[in-house]
Amino acid sequence: MDMLWNGWGDPAKAAPLPDTVTGLLRDLLGVKPRSTPALGLADLRPPAVTARPAALKALAEAVGGEEHVRTDAESRIRHTRGKSTPDLLRIRVGDIADIPQAVVLPAGHDEVLAVLRACAAHGLAVVPFGGGTSVVGGLAPRRGMFVALDLRRMNGLLDLDPVSRTAVLQPGLRAPEAERRLNEHGYTLGHFPQSFEWATIGGFAAARSSGQASAGYGRFDEMVLALTLATPQGTLDTGRAPRSAAGPDLRQFILGSEGAFGVITSVTVRIRPLPETRVYEGWRFDSFQEGTAALRRLAQDGPRPTVLRLSDETETLIGLAQPDAIGAGPEQGGAGPEQGGAGPEEGGAGCLAITGYEGTAEDTAYRRARAADVLTACGGTPTGTEPGERWAHGRYSAPYLRDALLDVGAFAETLETAAFWSRISELYTAVRTALTDTLTRAGTPPLVMCHISHVYENGASLYFTVVSAQGEDPVAHWAPAKHAANEAVLAAGGTISHHHGVGTDHRDWYVREAGPLGVSALRAVKCRLDPDGLLNPGVLLPTD
Amino acid sequence: MDMLWNGWGDPAKAAPLPDTVTGLLRDLLGVKPRSTPALGLADLRPPAVTARPAALKALAEAVGGEEHVRTDAESRIRHTRGKSTPDLLRIRVGDIADIPQAVVLPAGHDEVLAVLRACAAHGLAVVPFGGGTSVVGGLAPRRGMFVALDLRRMNGLLDLDPVSRTAVLQPGLRAPEAERRLNEHGYTLGHFPQSFEWATIGGFAAARSSGQASAGYGRFDEMVLALTLATPQGTLDTGRAPRSAAGPDLRQFILGSEGAFGVITSVTVRIRPLPETRVYEGWRFDSFQEGTAALRRLAQDGPRPTVLRLSDETETLIGLAQPDAIGAGPEQGGAGPEQGGAGPEEGGAGCLAITGYEGTAEDTAYRRARAADVLTACGGTPTGTEPGERWAHGRYSAPYLRDALLDVGAFAETLETAAFWSRISELYTAVRTALTDTLTRAGTPPLVMCHISHVYENGASLYFTVVSAQGEDPVAHWAPAKHAANEAVLAAGGTISHHHGVGTDHRDWYVREAGPLGVSALRAVKCRLDPDGLLNPGVLLPTD
Repeated sequence: MDMLWNGWGDPAKAAPLPDTVTGLLRDLLGVKPRSTPALGLADLRPPAVTARPAALKALAEAVGGEEHVRTDAESRIRHTRGKSTPDLLRIRVGDIADIPQAVVLPAGHDEVLAVLRACAAHGLAVVPFGGGTSVVGGLAPRRGMFVALDLRRMNGLLDLDPVSRTAVLQPGLRAPEAERRLNEHGYTLGHFPQSFEWATIGGFAAARSSGQASAGYGRFDEMVLALTLATPQGTLDTGRAPRSAAGPDLRQFILGSEGAFGVITSVTVRIRPLPETRVYEGWRFDSFQEGTAALRRLAQDGPRPTVLRLSDETETLIGLAQPDAIGAGPEQGGAGPEQGGAGPEEGGAGCLAITGYEGTAEDTAYRRARAADVLTACGGTPTGTEPGERWAHGRYSAPYLRDALLDVGAFAETLETAAFWSRISELYTAVRTALTDTLTRAGTPPLVMCHISHVYENGASLYFTVVSAQGEDPVAHWAPAKHAANEAVLAAGGTISHHHGVGTDHRDWYVREAGPLGVSALRAVKCRLDPDGLLNPGVLLPTD
Repeated sequence: MDMLWNGWGDPAKAAPLPDTVTGLLRDLLGVKPRSTPALGLADLRPPAVTARPAALKALAEAVGGEEHVRTDAESRIRHTRGKSTPDLLRIRVGDIADIPQAVVLPAGHDEVLAVLRACAAHGLAVVPFGGGTSVVGGLAPRRGMFVALDLRRMNGLLDLDPVSRTAVLQPGLRAPEAERRLNEHGYTLGHFPQSFEWATIGGFAAARSSGQASAGYGRFDEMVLALTLATPQGTLDTGRAPRSAAGPDLRQFILGSEGAFGVITSVTVRIRPLPETRVYEGWRFDSFQEGTAALRRLAQDGPRPTVLRLSDETETLIGLAQPDAIGAGPEQGGAGPEQGGAGPEEGGAGCLAITGYEGTAEDTAYRRARAADVLTACGGTPTGTEPGERWAHGRYSAPYLRDALLDVGAFAETLETAAFWSRISELYTAVRTALTDTLTRAGTPPLVMCHISHVYENGASLYFTVVSAQGEDPVAHWAPAKHAANEAVLAAGGTISHHHGVGTDHRDWYVREAGPLGVSALRAVKCRLDPDGLLNPGVLLPTD
């Protein structure tokens, strides 16, 4: 099944907003219904394929037949950009300027190498395509003629080593299928990002993904033990041991390379036994500051829950106000009856934290009881398992909610960062203020919500959700706010992305974060592995 | 205080072997007394400094005065090579072919940059020098004229952030002093490798060090949150958050670069509260295989001790036979009354495991009790805290023992590797056999001991100690055995080094492990940051 071409996920799961919510959006945020009728896929008219027949023939030979090189309009449209809100807004008005020439579907590592050779010979750029879920412009290269390299045929579980607890996965394997196949053997990967339903193993690796259970299972980059990379200059294999002192860690150089260094064709991951028990519960804190201190305490001194997150006052209120209507719980908020542009509410709702425990019954019980002592000592009040279950139930639904919001003329987008603990409060205020001020000045005071979604001993991530009215040109209207948020992130000492990645959207800020010499080192690697600049040109690194 | 110029550590701690041990070495391994008298430091005659006066003047200007550029014989000799057994054997016979032109002592990051500029201008190579404890030839560049960049003046604790639990340390800070200063604030780094007494923070980072408490505190590369690197092309700063999705992890590219990419001038590390309690104890297993399975069980399912190690049958027997005489406990073995070249003993001693727990009293008690259940279920028998205390007491003494062994004409060296759990047994046998067969064929049947010193969910390290008689030319005599062990490591799927590093000794095998494209990518970075090839030429990467 393919994802909705102009939105998120399974078309059958799309649901309109209740009229009451639409009315509130109108009254409180000034959201107006869209004046233009929605376009259908058939309304879009892609430009003709200009790649030469010889190039397409070479591609077909590389992947074992022309049935694996698709040039039909629908296939090309479905591989145009990713799933950021600007991506959706653009395609909804028929803007498919970033459309690929063709969609190429290799069946294995050697076919990927052959595709890269064919593209080098014919001057085509290559965009590796997993689930197509990038929200940072990672699928929109800055070069005219390119093909999308869709890895869906490379979707196997190649090996499972129960002694070492490792599994070898192909990059096009989607997360739910990877889980299902590991579950059959009694194991789990434990990687559950919000993109879970559609994202792929290769995409997780290429973009340094982090899942909602990262407190317990770690980030995806911490799960990866070995990688194979197909590049225009050949194959790079890395990872002979969990850890090594044999030079710089090449794995950590491939992870996060976003298709700019090569195509990841195999990922060896750490697996864990399926947990005996899972329990998720809610805790209430008077303030985001108090809750943050409690999370820090658990992250630093333990016991570490498997899931640990904390919504700020606004997100908590929204979640409590409309949990059923919008089905998102506190995960990514929604649009409820609060005034836009307001600061954090200091009312009775406080801040909701979710703690989750997965593991053996004994270990889960021990950690849960001890964590409860810590959270209580930090001012928390348990609110039972209902908020936890509600969060777990709605953990993947926020992107569907976004579609419904866009449908009624609202704007909704997310962005995220991370920093060391001592900077979290300042970073929170800086980004929130930047978003609120910019959009308010532009005439669309927003609702800005935030949660801590990932914790470490030394810091945490902040995940912001913004809902407002759409401007006249919604993409252009949003750009200054995103720009201001990015500037605020760097100024307050945060990283430009904790788990969404760089793509093209964050590239200019990433270049500043990495510094000229860091970028220079990365470009040196890129030039060596991809001397013709075929791979995702302009993604991660500037092309010039 | 400087380390012994021709051996390890504090000269006051040196102690000769008891005559009984010397006798046993003679009778069982054929060790003969050295026929030549030991040389004194004053007997060594360094070649004249050939660097031009203008170069030395430029260096003096870079570091604020000629008192910080040392060209006296003793300073140069003390910066000649590191502390591998071949290093010691060479310098003991007066071979100082790898002597630097001068020892340069910068006081800070800017002075390091100035030194690099001066060296570039005058065609001098640069070897960053921390504690001088490399055991892989990391201080012996393959280029004639070089200076040793001794970082001892850069030994400060620059910042401590109790909220984020981070500390900023300078590279020349020695580990005991770093611990002492952190301890004053109630914190610990938790990094205790065998080189602890002499090694520096910068060296730990450059060589991807791993300490004896890595099961609890992690490897040094896992403790590092930010780094500053001075290169001939300027400064690289990295690390704005504990984790990030903003591109490849540049920190993990600097870690393990062994001075070949730049000089690490600042290291931000994770710190932890000083533990309330520490308890170390012993467990007996019937066989190395059984003990390995028990360690794997704890590493994979927990609870995770802070220290977790397991000696094989031979190492256990040696440790039990002569614990007091040689002061090494089971850490690195010694030479006891066992026949050389024998296979693992299946006698009553079995295999000794050491488990250690550090933390709060409550957490330590819980982990210890549950780990005891697991170890018992895996066939282990507790042997009380005495073996644990003995191990802790002797944890840094093995290198002193080596000096004593070399003094009486024995050969003693260590090497180490790591692999995924499913390959550990084969790797163990392969390396053990390679060492035993090669040295036996050469007429010096060895005692080969091994322990697992570091465990991960997905694999472990193996640390081998070899003791035999010296050959006629001890360095040349050892070379084929080391070569055979390296070949065995690669053939059995291990990494060429788990924590000693690459240096020059492992370089040819490292090149095979990283593969041509991996090496090509590393060289691209090296060329960009160090275009003139000034930095540690031939260390980590080949020069041609």
